[in-house]
Amino acid sequence: MTGSAPNPFNKKILATAGPTPLPPRVSSVMAEPVLYHRDPAFAAVYKRVLDRLPTVFQSSNDVLLFPSSGSGALESAVMNLVQPGQKVLGIATGKFGERWLQILDAQGADTVKYEPGWGVRIDPGEIDRILTENPGCEVVFATLSETSTGIVHDVKGIAEVARRHGAMTVVDAVSGLGAAELRQDDWGIDVVVSGSQKALMTPPGIGLASVSEAALARAEAQPGGRYYFDWGRTVKAQRKSPPSSPFTAPVTLVSGLDVALEMIEEEGIENVFARHALLAKATRAGVAALGLELYGNPDEKSNVVTALELPADIDGGLVPKTLRDRFGITANGGQDELKGKILRIAHCGYFGAFDIITSISGLEMTLDSLGHKTDLGAGVGAAQRVFLDAGISVSQ
Amino acid sequence: MTGSAPNPFNKKILATAGPTPLPPRVSSVMAEPVLYHRDPAFAAVYKRVLDRLPTVFQSSNDVLLFPSSGSGALESAVMNLVQPGQKVLGIATGKFGERWLQILDAQGADTVKYEPGWGVRIDPGEIDRILTENPGCEVVFATLSETSTGIVHDVKGIAEVARRHGAMTVVDAVSGLGAAELRQDDWGIDVVVSGSQKALMTPPGIGLASVSEAALARAEAQPGGRYYFDWGRTVKAQRKSPPSSPFTAPVTLVSGLDVALEMIEEEGIENVFARHALLAKATRAGVAALGLELYGNPDEKSNVVTALELPADIDGGLVPKTLRDRFGITANGGQDELKGKILRIAHCGYFGAFDIITSISGLEMTLDSLGHKTDLGAGVGAAQRVFLDAGISVSQ
Repeated sequence: MTGSAPNPFNKKILATAGPTPLPPRVSSVMAEPVLYHRDPAFAAVYKRVLDRLPTVFQSSNDVLLFPSSGSGALESAVMNLVQPGQKVLGIATGKFGERWLQILDAQGADTVKYEPGWGVRIDPGEIDRILTENPGCEVVFATLSETSTGIVHDVKGIAEVARRHGAMTVVDAVSGLGAAELRQDDWGIDVVVSGSQKALMTPPGIGLASVSEAALARAEAQPGGRYYFDWGRTVKAQRKSPPSSPFTAPVTLVSGLDVALEMIEEEGIENVFARHALLAKATRAGVAALGLELYGNPDEKSNVVTALELPADIDGGLVPKTLRDRFGITANGGQDELKGKILRIAHCGYFGAFDIITSISGLEMTLDSLGHKTDLGAGVGAAQRVFLDAGISVSQ
Repeated sequence: MTGSAPNPFNKKILATAGPTPLPPRVSSVMAEPVLYHRDPAFAAVYKRVLDRLPTVFQSSNDVLLFPSSGSGALESAVMNLVQPGQKVLGIATGKFGERWLQILDAQGADTVKYEPGWGVRIDPGEIDRILTENPGCEVVFATLSETSTGIVHDVKGIAEVARRHGAMTVVDAVSGLGAAELRQDDWGIDVVVSGSQKALMTPPGIGLASVSEAALARAEAQPGGRYYFDWGRTVKAQRKSPPSSPFTAPVTLVSGLDVALEMIEEEGIENVFARHALLAKATRAGVAALGLELYGNPDEKSNVVTALELPADIDGGLVPKTLRDRFGITANGGQDELKGKILRIAHCGYFGAFDIITSISGLEMTLDSLGHKTDLGAGVGAAQRVFLDAGISVSQ
């Protein structure tokens, strides 16, 4: 089809908090011929991936790899650690916390549900109170970065409280891992689950679970009711020499993850955290310069995704639609109860300074086109100032 | 590294029964920029895939798509249809049949296990006898193509017998679907499960389950104990307009599957079956011309993979190793109790005449190099004769 007018917006831009854009190196390696999953050449890739993963979790644990989405890794944690009728605490302040509660219900757990409302940041002191009032909770299920609201939770504090009450802590870090600071071993978190498609810069289809020895022992003592997601089966295969997978591994995705982890290694995990913090800081500066409010407590500074409240003088539901259909940018609006109320600007994974400039520029043009008085360039300028003040250059 | 001698074998050739080689069109589409899984552009791809899948199953069922390996789809069938303590029949004549038994054990089913030995082809009359002697089996678990032995089973006959006894039939068609004839609705099979990485010409990472209304109703009447693989959750999302996935879909793999299914549509499913039959016939002719025996009953003609008995005068364990390390061809030897005894030549998925010629040529050179007296070219010549006699040409 030949267009009837020049269209400078037909170049599609992915700016969601997952799936995230792929580095060209990752796309390239996945286009190479498929390897047989039991071939020594693939075993070498698999070994590198398993060797590289613990750094991202800041842990010395076995990191178990499942052919699944992140939700599959969540389910693995529930099925391996909780038998029907066992008492646990489930924390939800958004869509993904609620997923924990749904999986726990499906498993028949006796779940104490703490749901203080969407957008609330969990106070570990409250968890202390709840665990005191509800003695006997054996496992606490929490979320690092609640993608639906942009809030990053104090999982370090939650894990400390849980440990004092004799409970294990399981953290959903699907959207946070590699973007928000997370130090699993230092912070004493028993299980961290994640997925390939966010800060790990790989397409969706790999679920991950970094599992402590204590958690593995608890799972082993409670067999039955699971096969595909059984931790014991996967850890046994991964500890072989060379390591293998109990089922056919998603070989192209694993090859992509290998390259993505190599890139994280080259950048250095601390630099990865710092880059995400800088991207987020610039985003917040841009949002503020446009006179918009951050969603949630302004002290809660997420490095994964920045959620902002949309102005009341426009139809908020039109913002993501206009960004996508007029300007070619796919970004996330609000989900469920936040539909039409917020916009979420992602900066998690393969994002650089000009991706932030692009997103803020798209936001400015969208607000203007929807009739909200907008000082075009003001948000972009504020973000530029943050990047300039950081004093970083390519050749550094 | 610069080689010290010319190496005509450094071009790697994948000749396994899964993962199988990818068509260039499939590789290309997966290297395009990632789509957001809730984007209308991806929803269109997802809808096309869901619309195209039933033809491959020869069914009008909903085909449920899971981000998982084929084993995940197997687990979904057990978890949705069988509650702990329910009586079922599990049939195993190889490694993948045994996987059914292991999953059923994990789920706590009361399983009647029929294991007449590896390589045996199931006689539906025997299933009739077993279901008579063991009344009350509610579900029968069978395998279409047992990859470990190359045997394709009479699942049509098994389903007929099961229906007479009031039991549902579930068929593992992970390696058979799209290669061996399977007509789910005509044959009255309630559930067929499969995966993306064999005749569907896509990398591993997608599990599929084609599920009858009766099977969906049975699952719905028995909730609990599952979340990720719950059929009700997935069917509900897939029946929305546009269809969606309850979890993040493996978007690159789904885009690849879309193109692979388009290729199957273009070729025509009956032609796909016929092509596999011809490739298999040529392979068997090549094997016979080399004086080698097919593994199992010679009347059992598999169109998925040809298993042959290795000659007794060489170390059979060296055959796959030599094929791979000297000649660059990755093919499957025997697994578990068949280790060192058989070689499996795959012809399932994106395979053409010269892939068969290559595999047989590699086999001839391997046998010769290991000291087995081999008439070089004899197997190739016999396969060529089959292809020529079929009278087919590109321009046809």
